[in-house]
Amino acid sequence: MKAVILSVGTEILFGQITNTNTVFLSRELNHLGIDVMYHFTVGDNPVRVKEMIQRAFEECDLVLTTGGLGPTQDDLTKEIACETLHDELVLHEDILEWLKNEVAKRGRKMTENNIKQAYFPSRSVIFANPVGTAPGFALEENGKIIACMPGPPREMTKMFKDHVKPFLQSLSDDVIFYRLVRTIGIGESQLETDLLPLIDNQSDPTLATYAKEGEVTLRIASKRKTLEEAEKAVDEMLEKVKAVSGSYIYSTDDEELADVVCKRLVENNITISCAESCTGGLFAGRLVDYPGISSVFERGFVTYSDDAKEEMLGVGSQTLQKYSAVSEETAREMVLGLQKRTGSRICVAVTGIAGPEGGTEEKPVGLVYTAVSFDGKIEVRKNLFRNIGRNWIRGRSVLAMFHLVYDTLKNENLI
Amino acid sequence: MKAVILSVGTEILFGQITNTNTVFLSRELNHLGIDVMYHFTVGDNPVRVKEMIQRAFEECDLVLTTGGLGPTQDDLTKEIACETLHDELVLHEDILEWLKNEVAKRGRKMTENNIKQAYFPSRSVIFANPVGTAPGFALEENGKIIACMPGPPREMTKMFKDHVKPFLQSLSDDVIFYRLVRTIGIGESQLETDLLPLIDNQSDPTLATYAKEGEVTLRIASKRKTLEEAEKAVDEMLEKVKAVSGSYIYSTDDEELADVVCKRLVENNITISCAESCTGGLFAGRLVDYPGISSVFERGFVTYSDDAKEEMLGVGSQTLQKYSAVSEETAREMVLGLQKRTGSRICVAVTGIAGPEGGTEEKPVGLVYTAVSFDGKIEVRKNLFRNIGRNWIRGRSVLAMFHLVYDTLKNENLI
Repeated sequence: MKAVILSVGTEILFGQITNTNTVFLSRELNHLGIDVMYHFTVGDNPVRVKEMIQRAFEECDLVLTTGGLGPTQDDLTKEIACETLHDELVLHEDILEWLKNEVAKRGRKMTENNIKQAYFPSRSVIFANPVGTAPGFALEENGKIIACMPGPPREMTKMFKDHVKPFLQSLSDDVIFYRLVRTIGIGESQLETDLLPLIDNQSDPTLATYAKEGEVTLRIASKRKTLEEAEKAVDEMLEKVKAVSGSYIYSTDDEELADVVCKRLVENNITISCAESCTGGLFAGRLVDYPGISSVFERGFVTYSDDAKEEMLGVGSQTLQKYSAVSEETAREMVLGLQKRTGSRICVAVTGIAGPEGGTEEKPVGLVYTAVSFDGKIEVRKNLFRNIGRNWIRGRSVLAMFHLVYDTLKNENLI
Repeated sequence: MKAVILSVGTEILFGQITNTNTVFLSRELNHLGIDVMYHFTVGDNPVRVKEMIQRAFEECDLVLTTGGLGPTQDDLTKEIACETLHDELVLHEDILEWLKNEVAKRGRKMTENNIKQAYFPSRSVIFANPVGTAPGFALEENGKIIACMPGPPREMTKMFKDHVKPFLQSLSDDVIFYRLVRTIGIGESQLETDLLPLIDNQSDPTLATYAKEGEVTLRIASKRKTLEEAEKAVDEMLEKVKAVSGSYIYSTDDEELADVVCKRLVENNITISCAESCTGGLFAGRLVDYPGISSVFERGFVTYSDDAKEEMLGVGSQTLQKYSAVSEETAREMVLGLQKRTGSRICVAVTGIAGPEGGTEEKPVGLVYTAVSFDGKIEVRKNLFRNIGRNWIRGRSVLAMFHLVYDTLKNENLI
């Protein structure tokens, strides 16, 4: 089956938002064995939206649209779907009732253009939208299918997973199964070189590496008649990959490193506390992303200034003067202070220069020290990240902290 | 002038990379007064690339392509440009020399397909590429222009700024100026209903609303002969908008609420400390996003557990038992504790239920209390967010904290 992803929204053509919907949908459709032939983006202009849908149907059987379902005036996708596939909009009382409740919940008044959202093509399958006020729908005529979803990624992704994906699965004939195998501690070219013998004579399953921030993900994919066949082929290849590069693999299931770490902490009931300077709370914030972390996450300190490092963690003022806040010594004392104050089995700290200011010849922007203690044993790591933006460096610093905790747990045979 | 941005690359259709080129180019073209009518993305398939270029020229005068200029076999954009605008590829000796140097620099040997990169349409304007091995070019015939750039964003953006932009500026006749006016505390439907009289008879300037997480942005755009005229028209409309919805506007220049708040804190040298439960450090992390915040950001506490709230902030154990951690009383005592320990002029705290677990009939997931004190005056707000995901609720909680601080500064006439 061949598909087109059509994004509707003038704000995309103005460059005001990055179109992440197409990335998500392209991956998902490929996963379902549906070939994505084109991405089209068009403004909130009925004539052009209709033209693009017709152009898509010249070559493809499926058009997935995002956007143009909101309550505002420029929302015309539903009308156009009807024109193209010969149907008419009718009021769905049940949707109207649901909408009234949703609007009331938000303490807002029902407006004329809210009511418009209760109209759908008479033949359409309607997809509920529990996280927004715009339900989606699919309409079919003579094997041509159009499925329309709202534009906001949060609404679209949930609707796709819960409703559109099952709807499409019943249509597609081949199944692609793939695993995203995540590694850390090895570069892309090195991993590719190591796996070249496996990559070179690949037909199915296929192997592909791609670099993410600070790590490399390996995609092993197989397209077969049944999910079972595909999964079996992928897992056989995975074993071959493990034989070569197993030591760098931390997940064979596309988990984040942070989640792998948090899972182990909770499973083994290992308490953790943290102290952050340049990351300013992002590590703690990432810990708390993990449901259930409350059982082991004891204390988080954001010690951005030198005063805070002294008063909250007891870092020596001499240490700060002699070695500066960004030094192995300060990182070490931050962890020591954490230990004293919290008694957590794992204490992790970070101090670094995220920029844009504050870099020197000797201590450039991107210099970040991460430190960890496990049952009193302390390790400090020096990281030197490229100076390509404050937030990028802070993100890499958080990853480095999790990497350090991961290695510590691994050394203790707790992973 | 009407333009299409054509992205060439199968990896985009596989969802392996996010297409940020289109965002960058759309913004740049709009600033140049060039209307972006469509984004097309197509794989490395000569037939489809050619079809898309021809489709683009049916309606537009300018096609900007990215990708398909590399040294690999599926790089056919140049050939297709020639077919479409009737030219032929000829070897450019000067480019060949330059290429040989580039390849040598990288310590590689010159390959057959490197040489291919020195061929360009005979009539084309060639754009140098100092950060890669694929120069770009523009080709024109009877007012139809195709400009081709490499795919890697780093190469494309530099080439655009240095060469393509000047080339286009000489072609364009109109200028678009727009403001992104950001509001908080009002829904999209309501804002649009309030502004309907202004929106309905819009021709130029145009008004459009769109919803972001927790807030609504209003775009006011005008297209005139000169930047001055366009800016004047937009600012006149802005005054009309302010007269209707001014109280919800926090930025007329597309700033984030958090940045508006941080800017004021730094400018007025108002010290701030924070204590976070459900957001687990994300508020502090967002503060630290703002360069220069170190002069006023004093302390950050992540008090995720009840123990932490008692020991780090001195919240009464009776309070926690009687009212629970997620209560107006606990939020109030968190702020009181912050005040005592930090003496910061602004202390802000949050406690809530982000889920997925922990919700009750009386205290559902999404219930979040935000509290602030300014020079000792305390305000506590009860927020009830929809239960659509832990991270979403936490993001909204951070926004609510900044919203509360913003309103506080506003009441004190510090904004």
